[in-house]
Amino acid sequence: MTAETARQIVLASRPKGKVTPTDLRLEETEIPAPGPGEILIRVDYISLDPYMRGRMDDVKSYAPPVAISGVMTAEGVGTVIQSSHPDYVEGNIVLAPTGWRSHALSKGVGLRKLDPAFAPVTTALGVLGMPGFTAYAGLFNIGRPKPGETLVIGAASGPVGSLVGQLARDLGLRTIGVAGGPEKCAYVMEDLGFNACIDHRDPEMAAHLATACPNGIDIYFENIGGAVWQAILPLLNTFARIPVCGLIAQYNGAAKSGDDRLPQTMRAILTRSLTMRGFINFEFAEHYPEFLATVGPRVADGTIRYREDIVDGLENAPEAFIGMLEGRNFGKLIVRLAH
Amino acid sequence: MTAETARQIVLASRPKGKVTPTDLRLEETEIPAPGPGEILIRVDYISLDPYMRGRMDDVKSYAPPVAISGVMTAEGVGTVIQSSHPDYVEGNIVLAPTGWRSHALSKGVGLRKLDPAFAPVTTALGVLGMPGFTAYAGLFNIGRPKPGETLVIGAASGPVGSLVGQLARDLGLRTIGVAGGPEKCAYVMEDLGFNACIDHRDPEMAAHLATACPNGIDIYFENIGGAVWQAILPLLNTFARIPVCGLIAQYNGAAKSGDDRLPQTMRAILTRSLTMRGFINFEFAEHYPEFLATVGPRVADGTIRYREDIVDGLENAPEAFIGMLEGRNFGKLIVRLAH
Repeated sequence: MTAETARQIVLASRPKGKVTPTDLRLEETEIPAPGPGEILIRVDYISLDPYMRGRMDDVKSYAPPVAISGVMTAEGVGTVIQSSHPDYVEGNIVLAPTGWRSHALSKGVGLRKLDPAFAPVTTALGVLGMPGFTAYAGLFNIGRPKPGETLVIGAASGPVGSLVGQLARDLGLRTIGVAGGPEKCAYVMEDLGFNACIDHRDPEMAAHLATACPNGIDIYFENIGGAVWQAILPLLNTFARIPVCGLIAQYNGAAKSGDDRLPQTMRAILTRSLTMRGFINFEFAEHYPEFLATVGPRVADGTIRYREDIVDGLENAPEAFIGMLEGRNFGKLIVRLAH
Repeated sequence: MTAETARQIVLASRPKGKVTPTDLRLEETEIPAPGPGEILIRVDYISLDPYMRGRMDDVKSYAPPVAISGVMTAEGVGTVIQSSHPDYVEGNIVLAPTGWRSHALSKGVGLRKLDPAFAPVTTALGVLGMPGFTAYAGLFNIGRPKPGETLVIGAASGPVGSLVGQLARDLGLRTIGVAGGPEKCAYVMEDLGFNACIDHRDPEMAAHLATACPNGIDIYFENIGGAVWQAILPLLNTFARIPVCGLIAQYNGAAKSGDDRLPQTMRAILTRSLTMRGFINFEFAEHYPEFLATVGPRVADGTIRYREDIVDGLENAPEAFIGMLEGRNFGKLIVRLAH
């Protein structure tokens, strides 16, 4: 495409259960012109994350929903191509709340300059960005890991799960992943060094999980919900901590069932003195510099590993997003934009 | 009865759902003779508490279940009538884990001497005992109350609820009770000074609760579960704290329903950064002296009020216990034994 047209993806309709391609719409617009104090960012990468499914629904949450015909929310990495802001010059690479679009205006609020020499810039969307910090903040502030404990983390090959597990592994915890399919499980065990990884598609998932956790579970970092939670529940030890950062299994609408599973969970919370704590990473923002200082060098030297799943073309973002909600990505899902 | 026979109540069978009178059995036995280092306690009062329902089931919990034909667990207040223990003499009044029985042997472990001049000895079973300390420990360690916040507490006329609410009231929180029936609600508002009390038997309970909490709920001290939790859930504010010390609405088996209510609760935990934390008071045992020092004098001078529901006769304990699980007691339920 030429640089004369901007493109963006808007919410066409609120999904009823599963997201369908017609819930999202690609639009062409003019490239906006920066006003006084503004910069124009050419977006090179956008991040697709499960939390965005929540923004498509019109329900009470920590953030307002995306409006119908509004541009879908996202963090992006881009290049400053015009600037009348004193802190930015053309060529600066920035992390910014761009949304799903090719060009974004900014007044400089919520931006962070990226140094490609520190780490590849796409890591600002994954292992060193919001997902990585979610892992770090939830693990230390809520999980409170102690050597010798057992931690289980879902979506273990993804950007949150893979960092939670590697941090726990290095702290001396028994670290168990849950992931979808043998290829992801092999990666989690062999490349990321978890003690075990359970395939949640395996009908014997609950039994395998029990076998992998002979001393029960002290920390379950919840980002799945659904059947995995049901398998975790009987294994949780007294005083177990459950940071809840996502519930991907129920984002597309909970499976209807004839059983009310709430009393069982409530009873476990009571009788085993469990702590369940939902959180959003920015609540712990004061720890972000410490996170970058701690995890950044270990990403740079390869002792913490990460995997990206890069899809080319903004027009392919809807399909990639729908696929992610079904677990079809393998690693941090990022859309690379052509310019 | 004469002093020549001891009586005790044992678990005859594990309840299937609701407790029935035949699940408990009164037995006569010989009065035991204390061995070296032991004391014999004549039990004057036993405490009946909702948690005992949990001990009747054979499930994984913080405490082992009562065995079939085993004496039901309880704290009691009694008088030392024989002692070969250096720390106790005849006439000492003690709080002890007596069980549901008229006479108990003790090696002096888990005992506390009571001073009737400090407060009526029955308060050691209620407002100054396990229920009161549950209120205190859960409120301060988990609830973390701040002036101006809104707190809701269930079973508000009971020993936990009434203290939670009075402590919150004195800290400057908007304090809302939930109780069963207009008489209890009137007591909670007029005698205990809560801002409002909602009758959970009222079909409009959820609407009344919403009206009573115009700024939402910051702390919900959970001791009920069931329909009250469903009414609370939409009102919980971001960062609300939910100490969970009981679930009386589901002890007798959850009502079957066609809906799985778990996803809704999980979603609220996630999107509103809720903290749910089950606890048992003894986990915070190091705060017990501070609790007694703080709350004791305020009970003595009447600025903290309490209500007891005293039933006479060990033989009436089963019926009283069954009634309590249905909310028929009014205040801390205590059985007074005749000797």
